[in-house]
Amino acid sequence: MPTIVTLLTDFGTADSYVAELKGVILSAVPDATLVDISHSIAPGDVGAAAYVLDRAWRRFPPGSVHLAVVDPGVGTTRAALALEVNGHRFVGPDNGLFSFVMRDAPVTAVLLAEPDGAAPTFHGRDIFAPAAARLAAGEPIGSLGPPFSGIPERLATREPYHEGKVLIGEVIYVDRFGTLVTNFTSENMPDYASLEIEGAEIGHLRRTFADVPTGVLLAYLGSDGHVEIAVRDGAAARKLGIGVGGRVRARLD
Amino acid sequence: MPTIVTLLTDFGTADSYVAELKGVILSAVPDATLVDISHSIAPGDVGAAAYVLDRAWRRFPPGSVHLAVVDPGVGTTRAALALEVNGHRFVGPDNGLFSFVMRDAPVTAVLLAEPDGAAPTFHGRDIFAPAAARLAAGEPIGSLGPPFSGIPERLATREPYHEGKVLIGEVIYVDRFGTLVTNFTSENMPDYASLEIEGAEIGHLRRTFADVPTGVLLAYLGSDGHVEIAVRDGAAARKLGIGVGGRVRARLD
Amino acid sequence: MPTIVTLLTDFGTADSYVAELKGVILSAVPDATLVDISHSIAPGDVGAAAYVLDRAWRRFPPGSVHLAVVDPGVGTTRAALALEVNGHRFVGPDNGLFSFVMRDAPVTAVLLAEPDGAAPTFHGRDIFAPAAARLAAGEPIGSLGPPFSGIPERLATREPYHEGKVLIGEVIYVDRFGTLVTNFTSENMPDYASLEIEGAEIGHLRRTFADVPTGVLLAYLGSDGHVEIAVRDGAAARKLGIGVGGRVRARLD
Repeated sequence: MPTIVTLLTDFGTADSYVAELKGVILSAVPDATLVDISHSIAPGDVGAAAYVLDRAWRRFPPGSVHLAVVDPGVGTTRAALALEVNGHRFVGPDNGLFSFVMRDAPVTAVLLAEPDGAAPTFHGRDIFAPAAARLAAGEPIGSLGPPFSGIPERLATREPYHEGKVLIGEVIYVDRFGTLVTNFTSENMPDYASLEIEGAEIGHLRRTFADVPTGVLLAYLGSDGHVEIAVRDGAAARKLGIGVGGRVRARLD
Repeated sequence: MPTIVTLLTDFGTADSYVAELKGVILSAVPDATLVDISHSIAPGDVGAAAYVLDRAWRRFPPGSVHLAVVDPGVGTTRAALALEVNGHRFVGPDNGLFSFVMRDAPVTAVLLAEPDGAAPTFHGRDIFAPAAARLAAGEPIGSLGPPFSGIPERLATREPYHEGKVLIGEVIYVDRFGTLVTNFTSENMPDYASLEIEGAEIGHLRRTFADVPTGVLLAYLGSDGHVEIAVRDGAAARKLGIGVGGRVRARLD
Repeated sequence: MPTIVTLLTDFGTADSYVAELKGVILSAVPDATLVDISHSIAPGDVGAAAYVLDRAWRRFPPGSVHLAVVDPGVGTTRAALALEVNGHRFVGPDNGLFSFVMRDAPVTAVLLAEPDGAAPTFHGRDIFAPAAARLAAGEPIGSLGPPFSGIPERLATREPYHEGKVLIGEVIYVDRFGTLVTNFTSENMPDYASLEIEGAEIGHLRRTFADVPTGVLLAYLGSDGHVEIAVRDGAAARKLGIGVGGRVRARLD
């Protein structure tokens, strides 16, 4: 069966960059199945990329290769890595991109060398895509480089905390619909909590958009397990003027 | 031969959502050929999605599966359907998305059940993609659910009408170039008609853009059979300040 | 091995147009591997398309077919061509799109006929995609049409020139990060040169972004061999208010 290689970058899709990665991979592994996760991560936004990657990778079959290049430190001393976690393979810079992928699972990490002639500003094409191609071609991860002697970078996690009878959380991602994904989950927030964001009352969790009239704010347990705040047929981020880092309050009384 | 599965959504391509659908399909049918139709339908714009789908599906070979998820009513009582029409299979919500696909052809429709644990806000991933995968894997449509007892939703069609010696039509779609697609066709508008939109004189149908100078308005029979209004090397929608629903007049004298 | 067909257009990805091309190709060659180069070329910007195509095609294996449709002259007398260069095949309008592809390599060119019923405004679907499909299916280029009797169009090339001790170049492309790609290369600009753009001092070539602090302008030899001007973690085009055609000066003393 051909190997799936997913791609996640902040390259956009207007330029040639993503196609250059794909050409490198298909030149080495002509029958690879390429799947775009996203190329519209805001330039250098490693946190958003880590969130998007963590939602996406688990939907693909084990053995898939996930090439992730959001790499504001390209050409610096940050390491270039290949990881094996949960039976999936990941390739990209060591800058926190794989923080959530590595949560609660043993990780094998190897260090990728910089080939002669690699462009210092385009490691995606010259280091990471060739490594992803080798994995897609069936090479074991250990053949790509020596074991990584460090500990892969992890983004500082932001957990909700208590202020008296209130649980304080925050927005960790905003999607294309303006939906606010929070760091509340069914595990850290009791389901009787009543939510509030920047002074706007939201109330208890609903099941889906249709539980409120058009234009009204609601919160619900989102499709990846985080509590989300949205406006039915609208955009919560714009309505509230809130983005990543915005504070959310869950009253517990 | 691997089965083609096309995807049409309003999810955008910045988030993980489209990749989650693709992961679900490829996990079940690793050799499916996935083709994006569009993911940039304006959120909830079922009319635009129905138009885009109707242009696209007919270019694919019979047997293709078309997964269409523009679903403002996700989580409500609107039905989830799989359809077989013209030798093609379609999967999506029953909200009018398939209006034009079903025109003038017999339809087999089955009702899709909501699997346990389906996210109420992401039926695309948890109901529709798995159904598309089963069709792509070769299951007959009848195995996906009971026959749909209702009549699939159809969008109200807007046909041109006469006001004396003038045929009144309207804009039904605006494309990325700002071209205005109208509900005039070679069947409902005589080719000697002279067009006018919001007071701007356009004249008779031309063959192609090059028949007028740069910056000039023209109308022509578009590549899907509808009369289109454009500005050579410009954007008619912006020049005229007109969008979907804008009135077009065809003088017949 | 399935044939790779790349696609480069200015169609955008919101409408059905790209999917219509893909449907035409997959209907004829179901196992073709389709790869998007870009569909976000500014409408009619043949120069940008030629640059993007030239970066991308060389990363794909010989035998690939490259379908390029940025075609402001659709429906005029500009020729429709299939080309064979460097073991790759190219299909598109004769308007300069292939200028850089043809540099320094012998070219076989054939003229494509307009099939009966081709839409005068959508040659991409009705002339170019079918031709690409025939090449992908294994037909030799000579079977697609008679040898092209003319000379394929080439864009006027812009080479740097001297003004005393200063080499004057210009911006030839701006990417999604706001990076300015210039017509300076390691062949026409000595590496001791010091750069300046619109009165802003840049200095000598650096190796990569990390060689300057955040927010600072730098120049470096880009990943395709052209000197690029960027702002670390910023957008040079916006910071400088400069686009394609903007003048760059390299002082040689």
